[in-house]
Amino acid sequence: MAKYVFNAWYAVATSEDVRAELLSRTLLEESIVLFRTEDGIVRALIDRCTHRFAPLSQGRLCADRVVCPYHGMEYDWSGKCVRIPGQDRIPAQARVKSFPVLERYGLIFVWMGDPDLADPALLVDISQYSSPQWGISRCYSKFGCNWRLITDNLIDPAHTTFVHQRTIGNDAGADIPLNSELIGEGTVSCGRWINNSAPVPIVKRFANPAGNVDRWQFYYVRAPATCWVDFGCLPTGTEHTAEEQAHAPYRVISYAFLTPINESATHYFSFQLRNVAAKDVVVTQEFERLYLATFEEDRVLLEQIQRAEDANPNLKPMYIASDSGVARLRRLVDKQLQEQ
Amino acid sequence: MAKYVFNAWYAVATSEDVRAELLSRTLLEESIVLFRTEDGIVRALIDRCTHRFAPLSQGRLCADRVVCPYHGMEYDWSGKCVRIPGQDRIPAQARVKSFPVLERYGLIFVWMGDPDLADPALLVDISQYSSPQWGISRCYSKFGCNWRLITDNLIDPAHTTFVHQRTIGNDAGADIPLNSELIGEGTVSCGRWINNSAPVPIVKRFANPAGNVDRWQFYYVRAPATCWVDFGCLPTGTEHTAEEQAHAPYRVISYAFLTPINESATHYFSFQLRNVAAKDVVVTQEFERLYLATFEEDRVLLEQIQRAEDANPNLKPMYIASDSGVARLRRLVDKQLQEQ
Amino acid sequence: MAKYVFNAWYAVATSEDVRAELLSRTLLEESIVLFRTEDGIVRALIDRCTHRFAPLSQGRLCADRVVCPYHGMEYDWSGKCVRIPGQDRIPAQARVKSFPVLERYGLIFVWMGDPDLADPALLVDISQYSSPQWGISRCYSKFGCNWRLITDNLIDPAHTTFVHQRTIGNDAGADIPLNSELIGEGTVSCGRWINNSAPVPIVKRFANPAGNVDRWQFYYVRAPATCWVDFGCLPTGTEHTAEEQAHAPYRVISYAFLTPINESATHYFSFQLRNVAAKDVVVTQEFERLYLATFEEDRVLLEQIQRAEDANPNLKPMYIASDSGVARLRRLVDKQLQEQ
Repeated sequence: MAKYVFNAWYAVATSEDVRAELLSRTLLEESIVLFRTEDGIVRALIDRCTHRFAPLSQGRLCADRVVCPYHGMEYDWSGKCVRIPGQDRIPAQARVKSFPVLERYGLIFVWMGDPDLADPALLVDISQYSSPQWGISRCYSKFGCNWRLITDNLIDPAHTTFVHQRTIGNDAGADIPLNSELIGEGTVSCGRWINNSAPVPIVKRFANPAGNVDRWQFYYVRAPATCWVDFGCLPTGTEHTAEEQAHAPYRVISYAFLTPINESATHYFSFQLRNVAAKDVVVTQEFERLYLATFEEDRVLLEQIQRAEDANPNLKPMYIASDSGVARLRRLVDKQLQEQ
Repeated sequence: MAKYVFNAWYAVATSEDVRAELLSRTLLEESIVLFRTEDGIVRALIDRCTHRFAPLSQGRLCADRVVCPYHGMEYDWSGKCVRIPGQDRIPAQARVKSFPVLERYGLIFVWMGDPDLADPALLVDISQYSSPQWGISRCYSKFGCNWRLITDNLIDPAHTTFVHQRTIGNDAGADIPLNSELIGEGTVSCGRWINNSAPVPIVKRFANPAGNVDRWQFYYVRAPATCWVDFGCLPTGTEHTAEEQAHAPYRVISYAFLTPINESATHYFSFQLRNVAAKDVVVTQEFERLYLATFEEDRVLLEQIQRAEDANPNLKPMYIASDSGVARLRRLVDKQLQEQ
Repeated sequence: MAKYVFNAWYAVATSEDVRAELLSRTLLEESIVLFRTEDGIVRALIDRCTHRFAPLSQGRLCADRVVCPYHGMEYDWSGKCVRIPGQDRIPAQARVKSFPVLERYGLIFVWMGDPDLADPALLVDISQYSSPQWGISRCYSKFGCNWRLITDNLIDPAHTTFVHQRTIGNDAGADIPLNSELIGEGTVSCGRWINNSAPVPIVKRFANPAGNVDRWQFYYVRAPATCWVDFGCLPTGTEHTAEEQAHAPYRVISYAFLTPINESATHYFSFQLRNVAAKDVVVTQEFERLYLATFEEDRVLLEQIQRAEDANPNLKPMYIASDSGVARLRRLVDKQLQEQ
């Protein structure tokens, strides 16, 4: 079984990170160099000169050419070598691999697999993005664990009750069953309604509803590693319809784009779309702080689990009822990994 | 040959360390969680939930139950799972291993081997402990080396002359032969009298005898890793009898309980019983400082030896005359390791 | 193929480093202890007692004997054990290996291979050393990479254009061809003249020539790892003869003695002989600073290349025209390594 699904879009940077200069990032155990050419388009090449393997990212970007820091070999944005100092002939193998790039949602996505399959339509479509009704907050974290521990976590609403009591969880949901399903060919969902209970801390802070609420938490993972959580609440007694949800007093859709760095480290790019105080910069900052703190709770726990698994490679998890989403997603991703 | 002797009591904490909250410790490559139930008794479980291997020690102790930090599974002190949120039936395999615990001498001892063999009588009996004639000082250190390098060191009076000239050694003993013997089935002793010589620094400091002394140093290791050093002196000319030793102007029995963390790290729990200034708190503090400093001298050296052995795995030690206790103990422990 | 050429002189310390006390150094994966006996001669032994492998360097030097820190075994400078406390007979195997030592050019050189081949005449002869016309500056660095990446770098004048624009390079030389050759049986040279160009920064700083210069850069490596760079300039139009070079307004011969610590770390002992401001202490300090900064530029890059090679062990470099010296040296050293 492969370690990674290569044919997928992976976030590796924010739009702001990438300018007309060289930036090194690592994903799927490969170092790449990112830069914007003068036309504003982001490019991605292997970060390793063909000559002696010097990191191109430590060189210079000069007239849209990447200049190797060691002997000045120059590559254009397609990866073709266009100059070798001290030598007229440029051999055909003087070429570094380039990767398809997509800039969307304020993020830079790279396709590390077969470039012929790099269809932009495969990136998740986010209808609320850019709508003035929705505010946006962003955060980034690096998790010291395998990416699949994080996708397990992000198809698992049950853990919020125990891990995130300070922000997005409380005791109310502990025993309420979850429903999971496969949507289309590649997305798993898992969620539930928790009715007639006190609002969780983050809802109290930003919407402060008068009485009890019916809270929904629906988690989605598009295999391999695009995750989102649809979370909100209605006054208890309101009908549970999509239309009511569309006008809920509090709703947040939190996206997470996970990118394996290697088998034991993962980039975690995230943003939250919220329907409260959409334009309020202070609220945006508070969301960024609260969500980062929430993800930190996951990170600490998942890194401990990673160490336990590393120390005991023969252990098998014991599935429980609330793992139905996890089990479904594991099967789906195993299939993707095996088919490669 | 096994790496550890499992059927033995191993110190893992002081009594003070363990309260009505969760504490993680590692021994013999296994992480355990320690806690006191409401009856005051110390309990020990594997520190790893059966579900997804989260460290139980990062959860909460609630009404004598250990609550997993990830999904709230609850275990009683026997390791039996008594609640799985979102699920009524609790499968039989939802059980974490528990370990026999013994609290004695201000320390918590755990038995990692066959629980049916966990006989409290196998712990060393210390008659002087709790006697008002004996003062007690304690210290803890973590050694970055294999436990057997430390037991070698603690059955070896010869090294004190060279390693510990600042506290418990001086040049006098260098060439005086050592006698080693097997006591009963499981204890090795190695020692000697060093007659008519100047007192070593620690004796000068706390007993300040008028002239030369006859100093004894008898080292004991009960296999695998319970060690004690009986050390004292009599005015030169006094008869060398147990009765005279019982009233010696200076005598310290220093205990060391060694617990392998893994092959290259070891817990070193220690206390010293002294017959001088038994109730003097300042002397106790000074003993703690001096013994910790003495063990630090050993630690630095043994960690260097560990690195030399790791770098040169085929080297064989060259036994010398003063190694008779070491050789005897090695044979005894090898036998224990092979019989497992 | 062996990892190191053992039959060679390797620098391991400066003369100042070694006094009448014990000093530990590691080369070719072996730890040695260095010391000066009372006759002022530097000695080198394996830094590991035959008994229990304690590092002798942590003991004491006492009347020209090395005393082991653990049990006081004493060795003379030839490595012969001359005392075992507690034991009269000294077995023949109680002997630590000693190594031939040569003190020259303010450095201590050790021979780790067959001692019968340790001919002082094999050390490079430096005629300018100790001449009052030449000033000397020194520096030391530890490179976190394989020694052969550094010898590649030091037979490669082409990289100065791109890596060292702040000190010893500028754009002028980029496309000027290099000539490499094998000199005698064991030295490779690679160099060129760069004519009628602006002086590089370090020349401007110390010689400030009026107009353009003809600059030479000739790099030499005596296999396996003794390296020197002959670098200087003449006013453009001057004939390129050895005699003119001998009276050049600016000339520096920079020596580097590389000593593998292990496969991924290397001692880099260096000194520069300069024909400008030979006795000026302030200039000496400035040279030390500038050359250390220059080597730091190499170090950072070579350590990145080492990591790239470690992560991609199957990559093969793509040789370019300016690699002729590198290729020649690689062949020569491969032969030395295979013949061992």
